[in-house]
Amino acid sequence: MGKSKKIKKLKKKLLKLRKEIKGKSGPLISPLAPKGGFPDLPEINGAEFAAVEAGVRYSGRKDIMLAKLAPGTAIAGVFTRSATRAAPVLDCEAKLGGDSGAGAAIIVNSGNANAFTGTNGKKSVEAITGAVSSVLGIPQTRIFSASTGVIGEPLPHERIVNKLQELKAALSAASIQSAAQAIMTTDTFAKGSFTEVDAEGPIRIVGIAKGSGMIAPDMATMLVYIFTDAQISQTLLQQMLSDLTRKTFNCITVDSDTSTSDTLILAATQKSSAPEITDIDSAAGSAFYDALHKVMLDLAHQVVRDGEGATKFVEVRVAGAETEADAHKIAMAIANSPLVKTAIAGEDPNWGRVVMAVGKSGAKADRDKLSIRFGDILVAENGWVSPDYREEDAAEHMKGQNLLIAVDMGLGSAESTAWTCDLTNRYIEINADYRS
Amino acid sequence: MGKSKKIKKLKKKLLKLRKEIKGKSGPLISPLAPKGGFPDLPEINGAEFAAVEAGVRYSGRKDIMLAKLAPGTAIAGVFTRSATRAAPVLDCEAKLGGDSGAGAAIIVNSGNANAFTGTNGKKSVEAITGAVSSVLGIPQTRIFSASTGVIGEPLPHERIVNKLQELKAALSAASIQSAAQAIMTTDTFAKGSFTEVDAEGPIRIVGIAKGSGMIAPDMATMLVYIFTDAQISQTLLQQMLSDLTRKTFNCITVDSDTSTSDTLILAATQKSSAPEITDIDSAAGSAFYDALHKVMLDLAHQVVRDGEGATKFVEVRVAGAETEADAHKIAMAIANSPLVKTAIAGEDPNWGRVVMAVGKSGAKADRDKLSIRFGDILVAENGWVSPDYREEDAAEHMKGQNLLIAVDMGLGSAESTAWTCDLTNRYIEINADYRS
Repeated sequence: MGKSKKIKKLKKKLLKLRKEIKGKSGPLISPLAPKGGFPDLPEINGAEFAAVEAGVRYSGRKDIMLAKLAPGTAIAGVFTRSATRAAPVLDCEAKLGGDSGAGAAIIVNSGNANAFTGTNGKKSVEAITGAVSSVLGIPQTRIFSASTGVIGEPLPHERIVNKLQELKAALSAASIQSAAQAIMTTDTFAKGSFTEVDAEGPIRIVGIAKGSGMIAPDMATMLVYIFTDAQISQTLLQQMLSDLTRKTFNCITVDSDTSTSDTLILAATQKSSAPEITDIDSAAGSAFYDALHKVMLDLAHQVVRDGEGATKFVEVRVAGAETEADAHKIAMAIANSPLVKTAIAGEDPNWGRVVMAVGKSGAKADRDKLSIRFGDILVAENGWVSPDYREEDAAEHMKGQNLLIAVDMGLGSAESTAWTCDLTNRYIEINADYRS
Repeated sequence: MGKSKKIKKLKKKLLKLRKEIKGKSGPLISPLAPKGGFPDLPEINGAEFAAVEAGVRYSGRKDIMLAKLAPGTAIAGVFTRSATRAAPVLDCEAKLGGDSGAGAAIIVNSGNANAFTGTNGKKSVEAITGAVSSVLGIPQTRIFSASTGVIGEPLPHERIVNKLQELKAALSAASIQSAAQAIMTTDTFAKGSFTEVDAEGPIRIVGIAKGSGMIAPDMATMLVYIFTDAQISQTLLQQMLSDLTRKTFNCITVDSDTSTSDTLILAATQKSSAPEITDIDSAAGSAFYDALHKVMLDLAHQVVRDGEGATKFVEVRVAGAETEADAHKIAMAIANSPLVKTAIAGEDPNWGRVVMAVGKSGAKADRDKLSIRFGDILVAENGWVSPDYREEDAAEHMKGQNLLIAVDMGLGSAESTAWTCDLTNRYIEINADYRS
């Protein structure tokens, strides 16, 4: 190779490394994204979707979505418990449980969270929901809005209002994928999930979600919209949703930071030919409950799989705790620990840090009854490293993309599982750089 | 420049960048280290120190320290509340408050935490404290030990025991600096502090500390040893120590992870010519209390200043909360938030993330009464950005090395302050790589 060619090659390498250092060459799509891309979601009778470009903050991409729901649609919801929650969250909370006779709509923008925007925030919500109400002919008390993006900047709501006729014209039962794309912020892939269940007749459940940072849901999470054609009352729908949120979205964490805007809305259009579900314990009720659980868990996992900078998906399974609350506390302490998460990023089976996280969780623990597994490998038991443990085996497991950390407390029979991702340089780069 | 020279130069640059990426060229000393290096600590009458190389894990550096304390020395201590605390911590806790007639000793090793080492851990503590007792002629119940380093590996205690004669021979009132060096792990500088107070006579207080990761003390912090010649009872000393720990070490955080080994021991040799302190509210008592506060706060700040990967020292001041517990909760939620800490690393005055952290803290908050300052710059008030706020001003403040985030809740008069550092790529590199 000639010297000029060598210089050229070295310069190219230099450029590549510089880019790597500056974090400009992060993955365009999370390595943990589901293979096969966005799923082929079936239509839900009674639900139509549209998404258009409004230029709220981003340009050259769709950034607002509208869902129009048929008269009779029951709406259940769970929201962030943050004391500084955003104006649209407060508005949605107040509207839950209202009369469903005239249908409902959901309007969402990305790019601006309309959070910590004082009285202006409330005015923006009123302007948007009022305009959607006029355009669709649905009472304002049935228009649910959400905003996601930067906190503390005024929302240019007229940009959204100006696009409502265009949105209305675009409404179609087949457009849910573009709705999922429109609500993305730092997400690297759109998130969708569906299932169909036989509950004395077919019921469909489809859902979309967004979220990749500021994720440690307290009550609900991110923006998640789930649609079903089930015939079910708002009260029973809300009961199932609240219960399942505890086992799904409240068990995931990317960075332990809880958003001001987390919103999960579940709409049941009542259009299925399956008879009405009236009891959570009936065969049909429990089939629907399990199906809803499946969709919520899938969406929750996809949120973790798009965690900012994530390269590993980690399940933390805690068993043998005295109470379920203790098991959850321990699972979340492990899943949130920066030292555990950086060890995972470094593919280091550093089980000592798992012990540390158990210890700091505040839950009851007996050091000498604790056992820890990485995947199928027994790492520690009886308060010390297992006699059969070989670090090479655990190190091999850590090289995988889907990891399991299992802890048995040896104290009781309560269990809990949490899901998290690793903590990498890329997370720092994304977040030290987000607004610039 | 000739082509060969150019190739050489480019190769050199490439090597440098590669090293940077691998985190091999991180700062040897934290940019936040106190100017002027380790302070010139005065001797404490009744306290002698020694440090030697025992090769517990590290080679080519001193890794064990011994402090010998005169008969009559009162020992106070606070320890981690972790449920998986290490064997030496459990041993120290049990020994507090014992008869001080025969003096006392402190033995510490770095490189291995002797944590989660089962019954072997306890045996190691007994072997070490028993041997120190024999060599120094001090009852075993007065030998306080600590270990810091990797969790879960057996401590080769015979390496320590074999060095005790050498340690004893090296004991000197002037050797405290080498003791401070011997207890370092990922620390980039040795931490020392002192003050002298006139309490109807001169009293000296000197202290040393170690710690730079796994730092979110729950009860005490890291390894901290403070020595004074004050005449004071163990009971009063313990009372002052516990009270001041709440205001100093329990208000710092590097990464929200609580160590299994945090230990703070305060020894009073009773050798000062100042009369005995018998009342915390007397002039002498409060002068001593304030002096102790000063040394503890200085050491706590030095621990943050050596936070893994830290480039900014951040004071988080919360005022106007309803209760002191709420103020502390809010200050720690801000200080622990990965999104706040990465924004600081990126010199981004992202006050929206401060709002988020206030909201998730669990403390009482009214969004519309909140005000936020960065340094002297009023950023937000009445639930929104201040009309006079110019982002350039705040961005300028963020470029500094010592930052202030001040939050007024507008609800009451309770206050609390926390100290933290930024979260940088270097933290990830250190911790994804610690054991390799």
